Amino acid sequence: MAEWIWYPGDFEIHQGMLQNCVREERGMRWPAYWYMDDCLRNVRLFREYVLTQEERFQVKICGIGYVRVNDEKHRCGETITCMPGRNLIEIFVANPEGLPCAWAEGTVIRTGSDWSADDMAGHIEAAGTSGLYQSPEQDPNRINWQEERVPCVSRRKVNGGCLFDFGRAVTGRPHFLQYPSGVRVTVCYGESETEALDVERCYYKEENADEHTDFRRRAFRYLYIPEKEAEQIEAEALHQFIPIPVRGTFACNDEKMNRIWKVSMETFRLCSGLFILDGIKRDQWIWSGDAYQSFFVSRYLFGDEELVQRTLLALRGKDPVRQHMNTIVDYSMLWIASVKNSYEMSGNREFLDFIYPKVISLLEYCLRQTNESGFLYGREDDWIFVDWADLDKEGCMCAEQVLLAHCLQCVVECAAVLGKEACGYEERLRKLRRNITEYFWDEEKGGFIDSYESGKRHISRQSNLWAVLFDVADEAQKASILKNVICSDAVAPITTPYFKYYELDALAKMGRLKEVYGKILEYWGGMLDMGAVTFWEEYDPAQTGEERYEMYGDPYGKSLCHAWGASPIYLIGRYFAGLYPTKPGYQEFAVQPEGIHILERFSGEFPVKNGTVRISWEKPCLTVSADVPGGTVILGEKSYSLLPGKTLKLEV
Amino acid sequence: MAEWIWYPGDFEIHQGMLQNCVREERGMRWPAYWYMDDCLRNVRLFREYVLTQEERFQVKICGIGYVRVNDEKHRCGETITCMPGRNLIEIFVANPEGLPCAWAEGTVIRTGSDWSADDMAGHIEAAGTSGLYQSPEQDPNRINWQEERVPCVSRRKVNGGCLFDFGRAVTGRPHFLQYPSGVRVTVCYGESETEALDVERCYYKEENADEHTDFRRRAFRYLYIPEKEAEQIEAEALHQFIPIPVRGTFACNDEKMNRIWKVSMETFRLCSGLFILDGIKRDQWIWSGDAYQSFFVSRYLFGDEELVQRTLLALRGKDPVRQHMNTIVDYSMLWIASVKNSYEMSGNREFLDFIYPKVISLLEYCLRQTNESGFLYGREDDWIFVDWADLDKEGCMCAEQVLLAHCLQCVVECAAVLGKEACGYEERLRKLRRNITEYFWDEEKGGFIDSYESGKRHISRQSNLWAVLFDVADEAQKASILKNVICSDAVAPITTPYFKYYELDALAKMGRLKEVYGKILEYWGGMLDMGAVTFWEEYDPAQTGEERYEMYGDPYGKSLCHAWGASPIYLIGRYFAGLYPTKPGYQEFAVQPEGIHILERFSGEFPVKNGTVRISWEKPCLTVSADVPGGTVILGEKSYSLLPGKTLKLEV
Repeated sequence: MAEWIWYPGDFEIHQGMLQNCVREERGMRWPAYWYMDDCLRNVRLFREYVLTQEERFQVKICGIGYVRVNDEKHRCGETITCMPGRNLIEIFVANPEGLPCAWAEGTVIRTGSDWSADDMAGHIEAAGTSGLYQSPEQDPNRINWQEERVPCVSRRKVNGGCLFDFGRAVTGRPHFLQYPSGVRVTVCYGESETEALDVERCYYKEENADEHTDFRRRAFRYLYIPEKEAEQIEAEALHQFIPIPVRGTFACNDEKMNRIWKVSMETFRLCSGLFILDGIKRDQWIWSGDAYQSFFVSRYLFGDEELVQRTLLALRGKDPVRQHMNTIVDYSMLWIASVKNSYEMSGNREFLDFIYPKVISLLEYCLRQTNESGFLYGREDDWIFVDWADLDKEGCMCAEQVLLAHCLQCVVECAAVLGKEACGYEERLRKLRRNITEYFWDEEKGGFIDSYESGKRHISRQSNLWAVLFDVADEAQKASILKNVICSDAVAPITTPYFKYYELDALAKMGRLKEVYGKILEYWGGMLDMGAVTFWEEYDPAQTGEERYEMYGDPYGKSLCHAWGASPIYLIGRYFAGLYPTKPGYQEFAVQPEGIHILERFSGEFPVKNGTVRISWEKPCLTVSADVPGGTVILGEKSYSLLPGKTLKLEV
Repeated sequence: MAEWIWYPGDFEIHQGMLQNCVREERGMRWPAYWYMDDCLRNVRLFREYVLTQEERFQVKICGIGYVRVNDEKHRCGETITCMPGRNLIEIFVANPEGLPCAWAEGTVIRTGSDWSADDMAGHIEAAGTSGLYQSPEQDPNRINWQEERVPCVSRRKVNGGCLFDFGRAVTGRPHFLQYPSGVRVTVCYGESETEALDVERCYYKEENADEHTDFRRRAFRYLYIPEKEAEQIEAEALHQFIPIPVRGTFACNDEKMNRIWKVSMETFRLCSGLFILDGIKRDQWIWSGDAYQSFFVSRYLFGDEELVQRTLLALRGKDPVRQHMNTIVDYSMLWIASVKNSYEMSGNREFLDFIYPKVISLLEYCLRQTNESGFLYGREDDWIFVDWADLDKEGCMCAEQVLLAHCLQCVVECAAVLGKEACGYEERLRKLRRNITEYFWDEEKGGFIDSYESGKRHISRQSNLWAVLFDVADEAQKASILKNVICSDAVAPITTPYFKYYELDALAKMGRLKEVYGKILEYWGGMLDMGAVTFWEEYDPAQTGEERYEMYGDPYGKSLCHAWGASPIYLIGRYFAGLYPTKPGYQEFAVQPEGIHILERFSGEFPVKNGTVRISWEKPCLTVSADVPGGTVILGEKSYSLLPGKTLKLEV
């Protein structure tokens, strides 16, 4: 089957740019505030075939151009005949407005990743393709939304108008099943009922609409039409999405946990399309820090390599690096770590090889702002984010050095996979690790301080959580951090769900899964108790009124369907079910189900590369099976080999 | 008056990319075969105003975005009110498909070059504007073609169809004044009658056309409609152009010279629009080598700084440099020289300051391929062009070193204007000049050899012409070159009009204007004798049949309206009338009319910065006047000051 082809990375970069332009707020379009790369405008796509018989083929392009066969020019769209023997097929395509790409199909001649792509400046790479674009009727410049009808579950009169509730979050558009002729109405959207009813201040509103209006794709659960004619309107919602098969399942004896899994899944599916976004209403941008966490969730829910690759490529854009990713220094480094993590999941050496130069150029960009101790410092206009929290950001920050050490470690590992030289990075890493402990470890306080330059010796959870997770802390330091930082009430608590992810991950990693369980029930369970159908960007149990929807100074600024809200999927898969790769691409993997000490029973299926692992627990019996080799079940000190297709039953 | 604004250079880069995609050949679109830059996708345009009273303004954008006034967001298109005092107006605009740009107008608040533009990666520059886009109804993404009706001058039956002759070259489209209903025809275009009548092989053809067809803008003089219904068709042509005022005039006692001036003017006007193109039918691309010469013609015909700037910016694209300009090493260097030449003409320090970093990055790109002698060598895939001629291209070529020396000289001069440091380049230049003579000067042959590495000691006109024109040859060497190379029948003659320009320029520079005169009458006069209404890409008097239209292996591949065909304008203005700047921007200029020794009488007007110089000669009386100060009339050893507004009459 022929596939659409383009210069590799360009589909993702172009669509990523479009994605970062999608955001809308109260009638204003709000493009992301960073430098946006775009695809190449002009490319050559080519392959040589040695044909054993005469062959006819056709070429379709998006853009303008022509086909050259053995130096003879042909029009696109016409049937071209090749003689037996060597045939060099070159498709020249420029697209002044979008992605230049091509599709060709004959008997033998078929565009695909075995074609080459030339940027017209001497850089030739294997052509890019996507499983989403394999038909000549498609156009890789357009997203092929699948549509699903969502009926209205309740419809009631409010303030003289009508409120429609679709019972779930939708990304799509209203569709009127019955509409009074000649009437124009205002359609107010809401993630919450409160928002939809707030005609003045709701985030999305379509004025002067009628049954012919071409509504933009927007996120909503409620629609409110304030005009009295609304009574005569019947509406459904058309949910628009890119289907990504769900391969992870989980159910246990705790109904709340089951609902948390389901709502996490719903949340994550809604945030995943061509890319993994932060949220469906706000920002709809691709953020590296959010993606870093989402990749772990995605691993247990979808196991979809292309989704991860698309998101990584869109985030990274083109060389040269113009600024830190999303303007945030830490986000550049989290992206580098994400590349390594994606390799861990996929074992896809080809993709690693392709993206490696982009990793190096971004790493070098970071290293240009390091001092003689190897510490990364912020330059003017650099955003050293870490977290929304009261951190001591004077001078070089511990959190950034820990991230940098992790980055270097990741790059050293990637280099080893590809057989590339990375001595310089190893040397830097050794020195950096030494200096982190020398400058930031505070023996008296039993943890890493944020900054040594300020003299304040301020301890935060953030730096220490990263030090634990990214293995910068040694075992003794980890134990001390657990006691003196993570379990200390004297250290300011984490208040953002963004860092709550790292905290729960660290706690689970250090064997405190019961505590994690409690926190999941409390935090995510709390949202469910408030009627959440998707998980929110942030949840504060103290807020019960309209202030729940407020964020960043906007009454409806809070995203009620936010990808990082889905992190229970990761915690469940990684720790409760206990599945994780021990060699890239799950060539080898462990099943270390800590959940058996907490839950009475559970069963789950999780994707691994080319297969599925099934784990079920019904006290006292653990059953594990996998359709791929390489598995080991770990129970305490003991481990058991898992044979493909064979079910392992263990009594605990 | 408010102007449309954008990130500086982006309008030119984006439109230049579109221009390089315009080419068409026999139903195929043919984008240029080099790397194409495009504009930024996402920018911030801003200015602070201190208002003394309340002010209302509106913003229009091309793309998506919003307006932020003192941190408060507003919709584009709405009336925004500012209070007295400090007001920071920021327009955020992304354009996923084209040029992001904005227009704002209130009483005081008006977009213009006093606004700033941010690339969202920390590079802030003065906003770009164009005299062509000063109305809110315009869209800088579209070209505002002016249309002129061109009547058909003859219409005759040929081979059962009809041939329409418009008597002149047109860039535009057919317009049917009378058309038989329900009929579809084939419209064959031709620069020549032969081409239009060649239904199979003509360059442009519109099949299945009727009176509703939206014809593309194309170059033609003739149209042929082969169908018998053509008899019922009456057509005119709609010529589409960007008006650029002609400020240069010339007339003399030699009618042939007068016609050469007029046809040169016609040719050059047709090739000039947003940019100076090579030709109107083929390639319609922006070539640096062609532009280098065209800038000199433009100086005497239009004196239009913006046209030159647009062409320079479109050619150069964005940093980093991805490849040599138009893929040709010499064209990179000719571009650098063109920047200096444009400054010489305009004295526009602001533009020089803006473009200087692009000059340096391109120069550095060239210098990366130099050896220990300072010589530039070709790398694999580099195109060392010089000329279509039998040159000895082994190893480092003399012609390239001469160009490089000229480039370095130009950059040193530009740096001096801007008060920038350029010692390194001066040092390189000294060394390079020394080495050129040491390695390439052949005392025995009395000229520079093409290559010293081959051992062939091959002498060509090309290297020596550049050595003379770019002042690499000293006076003694120049004299020797004139005798032993330029006037030697043993050295292969120049065969391309591209290098004929350099040859005539060098001859004129060395006082051989009479010879130049003869060659102009012979070469350009020859084309007139063949019925040319515009000057051709190439002219060989020996060709008289259909082979005249052939080039590059294509029966109609020769461009019959080619910018470099207009070089008599330069030769006339520069040498016959003798006008040239001696300080940047014609702050000081000379009038050294060598034409008085050749022509009985002539009179001409030529543009200088902010003014016009009038020169007329009627044996024995020379009359010169200028409306700007700084002029000096030079006659042999004597010179006379020219006062603004005062006519200087001299008896010779």
